[in-house]
Amino acid sequence: MKKETNLFITQLLAVFILTVISASAQEKTNSSPDTQSIFPKGSKAPAVNFTGTAWVHSLIESDSTFNIPVASVTFEPGARTKWHTHGGGQALIAIDGIGYYQEKGKPIRILRKGDSVKCAADTPHWHGASPETGFVQIAVTPNATKGRVTWLQPVSDEEYKNLKK
Amino acid sequence: MKKETNLFITQLLAVFILTVISASAQEKTNSSPDTQSIFPKGSKAPAVNFTGTAWVHSLIESDSTFNIPVASVTFEPGARTKWHTHGGGQALIAIDGIGYYQEKGKPIRILRKGDSVKCAADTPHWHGASPETGFVQIAVTPNATKGRVTWLQPVSDEEYKNLKK
Repeated sequence: MKKETNLFITQLLAVFILTVISASAQEKTNSSPDTQSIFPKGSKAPAVNFTGTAWVHSLIESDSTFNIPVASVTFEPGARTKWHTHGGGQALIAIDGIGYYQEKGKPIRILRKGDSVKCAADTPHWHGASPETGFVQIAVTPNATKGRVTWLQPVSDEEYKNLKK
Repeated sequence: MKKETNLFITQLLAVFILTVISASAQEKTNSSPDTQSIFPKGSKAPAVNFTGTAWVHSLIESDSTFNIPVASVTFEPGARTKWHTHGGGQALIAIDGIGYYQEKGKPIRILRKGDSVKCAADTPHWHGASPETGFVQIAVTPNATKGRVTWLQPVSDEEYKNLKK
């Protein structure tokens, strides 16, 4: 009987180990960045206009007949733009992670995948990732005659942390 | 010995069944549309302009200062638009699945997530899902003075199946 019990425990252990290995391999496949992320990160965004690290990947280059560049922007946790305005406004579509968006004089708005923002022309605002989780967005930015973007002051740590719960 | 073998087989079978049940539950969680899809499907696209079933979810409504509607479109396998043109052109961003895009006189182009298409103004074209796999895209469609969209003839089965391999 003792022999049988030992055999049982050994067999159970072996199958358990195989199960764990198989589950772990499956998890690895599912969370791989290559299968999860839709867009490549692209090039590092110019440090002068951002706090922290952000990446820009151009999706649609503007031309004389379609003067509306589209890009994906990937913010690492804590990264954000400076305050800025767009002469032709901007549309943001949240694709992944958790983002922050704020217009001057309004509370910070949390963005989750599937959310969208329409930022009116000449409205001072900033956007970026939450402190703990990165953020991927698509930005649609018409090249207005008044200019695509005007950069203002950086978003201070005090402003960035001022999230109303 | 025979008893031990029987016991072994019974145990192995029990653990195998539990493993399959657990893996199947995990798969269900991972492929759930609620966790996987970024956008809700939205409303059924008007049947008169589509072959098969497609869904449109508005992300950005146009207004007088930002006259550029943005929407996600979900095509079920085999679904596609009619041939059509846009007075202000259109940008498409492939978000999920496998899509088809074709401009008049050119071969069908396969779209996979992360791909983008700039369709020039007044260029007859169509887009949709591949026959076996659905497709999710974001469409950026300026409301040009010449009209947002002009619908033409349906994409025949012959045209749809004419994929150069």
